[in-house]
Amino acid sequence: MNAPLNFSELEVGFDVPAVPGMDEKDIQTPCLVLDLDALERNIRKMGDYAKGHGMRHRVHGKMHKSVDVAKLQEKLGGSVGVCCQKVSEAEVFARGGIKDILVSNQVRDPAKIDRLARLPKLGSRIIVCVDDIANVGDLSAAAQNHGTQIECFIEIDCGAGRCGVTTTEAVVAIAKAIDAAPGLKFTGIQAYQGAMQHIDKYEDRKAKLDTAIAMVKDAVEGLKAVGLEPELVSGGGTGSYYFESNSGVYNELQCGSYAFMDADYGRILDEKGNRIDQGEWENALFILTSVMSHAKADKAICDAGLKAQSVDSGLPFIFGRDDVKYVKCSDEHGVIADPNGVLKIGEKLKLVPGHCDPTCNVHDWYVGVRNGKVETLWPVSARGKAY
Amino acid sequence: MNAPLNFSELEVGFDVPAVPGMDEKDIQTPCLVLDLDALERNIRKMGDYAKGHGMRHRVHGKMHKSVDVAKLQEKLGGSVGVCCQKVSEAEVFARGGIKDILVSNQVRDPAKIDRLARLPKLGSRIIVCVDDIANVGDLSAAAQNHGTQIECFIEIDCGAGRCGVTTTEAVVAIAKAIDAAPGLKFTGIQAYQGAMQHIDKYEDRKAKLDTAIAMVKDAVEGLKAVGLEPELVSGGGTGSYYFESNSGVYNELQCGSYAFMDADYGRILDEKGNRIDQGEWENALFILTSVMSHAKADKAICDAGLKAQSVDSGLPFIFGRDDVKYVKCSDEHGVIADPNGVLKIGEKLKLVPGHCDPTCNVHDWYVGVRNGKVETLWPVSARGKAY
Repeated sequence: MNAPLNFSELEVGFDVPAVPGMDEKDIQTPCLVLDLDALERNIRKMGDYAKGHGMRHRVHGKMHKSVDVAKLQEKLGGSVGVCCQKVSEAEVFARGGIKDILVSNQVRDPAKIDRLARLPKLGSRIIVCVDDIANVGDLSAAAQNHGTQIECFIEIDCGAGRCGVTTTEAVVAIAKAIDAAPGLKFTGIQAYQGAMQHIDKYEDRKAKLDTAIAMVKDAVEGLKAVGLEPELVSGGGTGSYYFESNSGVYNELQCGSYAFMDADYGRILDEKGNRIDQGEWENALFILTSVMSHAKADKAICDAGLKAQSVDSGLPFIFGRDDVKYVKCSDEHGVIADPNGVLKIGEKLKLVPGHCDPTCNVHDWYVGVRNGKVETLWPVSARGKAY
Repeated sequence: MNAPLNFSELEVGFDVPAVPGMDEKDIQTPCLVLDLDALERNIRKMGDYAKGHGMRHRVHGKMHKSVDVAKLQEKLGGSVGVCCQKVSEAEVFARGGIKDILVSNQVRDPAKIDRLARLPKLGSRIIVCVDDIANVGDLSAAAQNHGTQIECFIEIDCGAGRCGVTTTEAVVAIAKAIDAAPGLKFTGIQAYQGAMQHIDKYEDRKAKLDTAIAMVKDAVEGLKAVGLEPELVSGGGTGSYYFESNSGVYNELQCGSYAFMDADYGRILDEKGNRIDQGEWENALFILTSVMSHAKADKAICDAGLKAQSVDSGLPFIFGRDDVKYVKCSDEHGVIADPNGVLKIGEKLKLVPGHCDPTCNVHDWYVGVRNGKVETLWPVSARGKAY
C-alpha cells in the first residue's frame, strides 16, 4: 500500500493527527510526537541500568498510559510489568496483555474493589497498595467472591506526604492482617518518595532518599522479625533510581518520566551538576505546534494552549531554539516571543512540556516519528482513565 | 427497564462513571458532575438577559465541548449557535446538528482550511476569523474547490494580546479583500477582550472594555465608510457581557463559563462588589471526588489530582465546606487539610475547579444529576479536539 502523502487525499474524519507513512511536516497540530530513536535509547539505557544493578523495573504506566509504550519497555528494556494509579488504568493494561500490574495507590470504593478483584481472571498478576487495616477485609471479601488472589503492598509514606503509613508498627500490623486474610497475599512494600524527585540538587535529593531508605529498612527488619519478609520492595523514580538501586533494601524500580523527559524533570541536576536532559536522558516527547498568527511584529501565536498540555509545573520550552520563547499560555493559544520576527505562519515548533504525565493525558494519540516520517500512531490507551 | 442500582450489578467495562437512574452516591470518582437545576437556571438567566438587550447569543462551545449542552442552550436560552476554537471542534458541533458555527480563531494550515471548507456541506453556517490578508486567498480557493461559502469575521485584538489586528486600516483592508474573494463573505467583526474577563473589580473591567469598544466602534465606522457595514459584531464573556450589550456597537455575545462557573471566575466581583458566584451565577459544574486515604490524622487524600483537572488558574475549592480545604494537587491525588479529622474514607466531596474549560477537556463524560439521582450522561463530545 502506498501511504497517503497528506490529509487532503483522505476522505475520512479527522480524529487522528497523522497517518503512518506521512511526512513529519504534514502532521496536524497540536499533537504529541515521539522521537522513536530517542525513546528507544532511553528505554534501553534504563533497562541496562536496572539489569546491571540486579533490580526489577516495573515501569510507571501512569506517565504514558500506553500499552504500546509499556510493551516496548518490556521488549527493549526488560521491564517486568507496570505500575499505574487507578483501577481503570489497570483494566486497560491487563486487557492489553501486560502480565504484572501494580496499582500503586489505595483502592477503597466498593465498586472499584470489585473491579480490581475481577482483574486476575484476565491472566495478569494484580498487586494493590494498602495503608489502612480497615481495607483488608474488603479486599479479601472481593477476592474470595471472584475466586481470585489479590497481592498487597503496604504503602509507606517515606516523604511524598500523600497516602501511606509512617511507622514500622503500622506496616507490621497491616502485613499480619493481609497474611491472615483469605484471597490476599502479602507481597511487599511500596515506598516511593515522590516529593524529592524534582529537587534540583543531587545531594539534596540524596539526603531525602537516605531518610526514606532508613525508614524502609526499619520496616523490612520489623517484617522479618515476624516471619513476613517482603518479596518485593518497590519505589524509585527518574530523579532517584540510583539511590534505591544502591540501597541494599529496594529490589524494584518504578521509573516513568525517563522514557519521555519533560521540562521540569530536565532541570534537575545529576551528580556532576549537569541537567539530566543534557546527557543522562534525551527529550523524546514533544508537543508539535504551528504558528497560526503573527499580527504583531514581535510575537507569534501558536496553536498549543491549555487544551494541549498541563502547565502545573511551568511552561514548555521550545526545543532547539534560543531565538524564540514560549511566554504565555491560554486555553487555545500559546504566545511566543519572537523579538526578531523570524517565525513564519505555518512554521512548526517542538515544545517540551513542563510536565509529561498530565500533558499526555489530554491527548488521544502519540505520533511516532523517525527520519522525518511518521512511522506509527499509538493510542494513549488509558487516557482519561482516572477512576 | 429498571435502572441498575450500582456498578456491581453490571457485567460491563467501566468506561462510564455512572448510569442514568443510579443514586448520586454510587457515581464513580473522580468525574464531572453537573447540577442540572443550577445549569438550567444559569442558561435561562443569560438567555433572558440577551433577549432583553436585543443581543444574539452565540455560546462558547469550547468551554463545555458538548453538543448536548449546546442544544440545551438553544432550547432554554435561545442561543443562535456556537463559537469554538478549532476546526475539529466545529466538525463535532456541525455533525451534532448545530447550525451556526463560528471558529473564533485563525485557521492557516492547508489541511485545516480544506476541512473547514467542506463543513458547510453538513448544513451549517460556517464563519471563521481572519487577521492576515494573506489568509484570504487560501480560504477562497478552498471554498471554491468545495463549492461552499465560508463567512469571515475580521479579528481585532482589543486587549487579549493574542490573534487579531490592531488598526482600523488593517480591518478595512482585509474586509475589502474578503468581499472581493469568490467563495467568501464578509460578515462581521470578532472582538473578544479575553484578558480582562478575570480582573476582579467591575470598574477595572469596565475601563478595559471602554477602550475595546472605542476601538471596535472606530473599525465599524471605517467599514461603513467603504460600504462594508458588518452584519455581526461579536464578543463578550462572562466577566463583560453587560458592557458589550450596552455598547451600541456589539450585537452578538460569546459567553461560555456562565453556564458552569468555576473558582477563578467566581472570584470576580459584580457592580455591587459581590462575587459573581454568589448571586449572579450558580456553580453547576463539580469534580466529584472521594476520600481514599486518611493515614495521617490531619490530612485526607482524595482521588482528584492533575489528571482530573487543570490547575492553571489555581486549586479547586470544596463546595459547601469551610471545615476542610483542598491544599495540594499532584498527578493522581489531592491533599485535603482536615484539621479536625472529620472526613471518612469513601466520603465524597464536590470540587469547584479553578478553570472549567481545560478541566472539562480531560474528562469523557458529564454526569447530570438532579434530586440525588443520575438523570443523564452526556459525552464531552469534542474532548481532545485540539486540531
